[in-house]
Amino acid sequence: MADFHAVIPAGGAGTRLWPLSRASRPKFLLDLTGSGRSLLQQTWDRLSELVPADHVHVVTGPAHAPLIQDQLPDLSNLYIEPAPRDSMPAIGLAAAIIDHREPGSILGSFAADQTIEDDAAFTAAVREAVAVADDGTICTLGVTPRGPSTAFGYIEAGPQLEVSGAPTARAVSRFVEKPDAATATDYVERGSYFWNAGMFVTRTDILMGHLRRLHPELHDGLQRIGQSWDTESRDATLSTVWPELAKIAIDHAIAEPVSLEGGISVVPGDFGWDDIGDFAALSHLPDSPDAVWIDSSGLAIADDGTAIAVVGIPNAIVVRTADALLVTTLDNAQRVKEVPAELRRRHREDLV
Amino acid sequence: MADFHAVIPAGGAGTRLWPLSRASRPKFLLDLTGSGRSLLQQTWDRLSELVPADHVHVVTGPAHAPLIQDQLPDLSNLYIEPAPRDSMPAIGLAAAIIDHREPGSILGSFAADQTIEDDAAFTAAVREAVAVADDGTICTLGVTPRGPSTAFGYIEAGPQLEVSGAPTARAVSRFVEKPDAATATDYVERGSYFWNAGMFVTRTDILMGHLRRLHPELHDGLQRIGQSWDTESRDATLSTVWPELAKIAIDHAIAEPVSLEGGISVVPGDFGWDDIGDFAALSHLPDSPDAVWIDSSGLAIADDGTAIAVVGIPNAIVVRTADALLVTTLDNAQRVKEVPAELRRRHREDLV
Repeated sequence: MADFHAVIPAGGAGTRLWPLSRASRPKFLLDLTGSGRSLLQQTWDRLSELVPADHVHVVTGPAHAPLIQDQLPDLSNLYIEPAPRDSMPAIGLAAAIIDHREPGSILGSFAADQTIEDDAAFTAAVREAVAVADDGTICTLGVTPRGPSTAFGYIEAGPQLEVSGAPTARAVSRFVEKPDAATATDYVERGSYFWNAGMFVTRTDILMGHLRRLHPELHDGLQRIGQSWDTESRDATLSTVWPELAKIAIDHAIAEPVSLEGGISVVPGDFGWDDIGDFAALSHLPDSPDAVWIDSSGLAIADDGTAIAVVGIPNAIVVRTADALLVTTLDNAQRVKEVPAELRRRHREDLV
Repeated sequence: MADFHAVIPAGGAGTRLWPLSRASRPKFLLDLTGSGRSLLQQTWDRLSELVPADHVHVVTGPAHAPLIQDQLPDLSNLYIEPAPRDSMPAIGLAAAIIDHREPGSILGSFAADQTIEDDAAFTAAVREAVAVADDGTICTLGVTPRGPSTAFGYIEAGPQLEVSGAPTARAVSRFVEKPDAATATDYVERGSYFWNAGMFVTRTDILMGHLRRLHPELHDGLQRIGQSWDTESRDATLSTVWPELAKIAIDHAIAEPVSLEGGISVVPGDFGWDDIGDFAALSHLPDSPDAVWIDSSGLAIADDGTAIAVVGIPNAIVVRTADALLVTTLDNAQRVKEVPAELRRRHREDLV
């Protein structure tokens, strides 16, 4: 594991978690689980079991960099994208820097805003994935489905792989988008489908090789930035090259095409993963102790400890902040993103 | 109308309007209709059309007296009950004081926490009621029902009375308690039933005469207090007599028994009366301008102007104050009183 580096792309607005999540205070900076640590800090803590602090790399935008550095005082590798370019340039930036500094490294990418209940099972899966990646494939972590969710994409696993140190690794047959309910039920019954948590492990040279082949301009731009990063020309190179980079997600840029070539593997894991996509994901948390539920149930959050009373609304979601208030139900949790959209239309960017 | 005095009993918690209405800040002190005037001030304004300021008398408890005097700077007759004894001693206190100061007066009693849309129609009805009361009956104001409400008691009107200056006055056959829906529908169809708004007009000597006959001890206690009120012995008399007074509502003490003797009359009126019993009564008010309704409708009040968003809840009621938050629906508006009751059980008197 000495060659292993962890990359944390820290982006995403979390608009379905409004009003807790804001443009200036996104989901990954929040302590949504009441643990005392933000989702980003929990990600850091989890990866600290696997890598030393100087092998953790965070990629983010200029607006959030100061808060990230505050939350992670031991972080030494914080990379600031001049403008958002989606996940491929973000992860590719870290890959190019690491590949230039330490050729032969292995990189794992882990989103900043997810939760994992069983850290030991997670760590074991990552160790297997590192062994598989060392063998030359891009190895995803496939989450054992806990139900026929329609909120996630799925990974269809193929035959077992024979890799030393990775007894559960399998080839990936294909990635599939979020399914409908009937398809999701079918997937879960088959047992060979896993939730795509967007986490993967790869050798940096393998990733850069796929990029060179599939997206040569993006590859060349990232290489130029990677070579200049630790030199005086970093800012000049960034400011000329970055704006020209294609805006593309790593799923479309690499994962899907390479899966068709047999170049993607998967290590399944049942480690209690969640992406906290909306308030329904938090509804198992204990209620606010001051809440009064009369013929009601659900989730009541007041970030100032205010007393909340709900009368006659089952599965209610009530979230109160100093400047805003959301009231909805579990069934409507996904639609919460419409609120910040509407507020933007009303030119209330102060509330978004 | 020179002999006419208006009495405003200012009591009642308004627990169905929590968290706006509190023990320390009851319904009648609140500007619930967005008019810029509290319900008490609106009552004062309305009565100012009928009587001079020194003919208005307010009866309340010690806790609310300072706020009432603040809201009504021109009020000269503020009577403080040492402890709550229900409506008969409250109104009887004012009646005894007025009867002692100005024998032959006519008194009208008007609750502090009701709304009236058509002041001219109200004023006309009161003028008729004063004419009827002068003739020796206790004259109630009967509100023309705007629907088969089960939230109010009803007054059944009997034959027309022949009183000069009161062309619409009728005898009262009986008072009936809040009916069920079928009975209420029947009442409204019959046309001879009116909502009991608890407003009545009577000669003070007639009221005190009924009291002497039906509740002699209460009568004697109130008389002693009335005689001492404008003397040095007021406080001594109050502190010895008041605690001994029976706790009884004027409906049971006077209105019901005297109606059986034919001593109650009614002047019907269609003046847009409401008692603002719960938030459903406010649901016609314009929404908070900052509120975002997504597949939702209802009432959103934030007393600090905070943005409120409601997603997927029709007929929602959302009321936010600095220290508390209520979420319910129109159908559950009557049940809101269960919230302060539960908070008392939890020893959260600070929120009640």
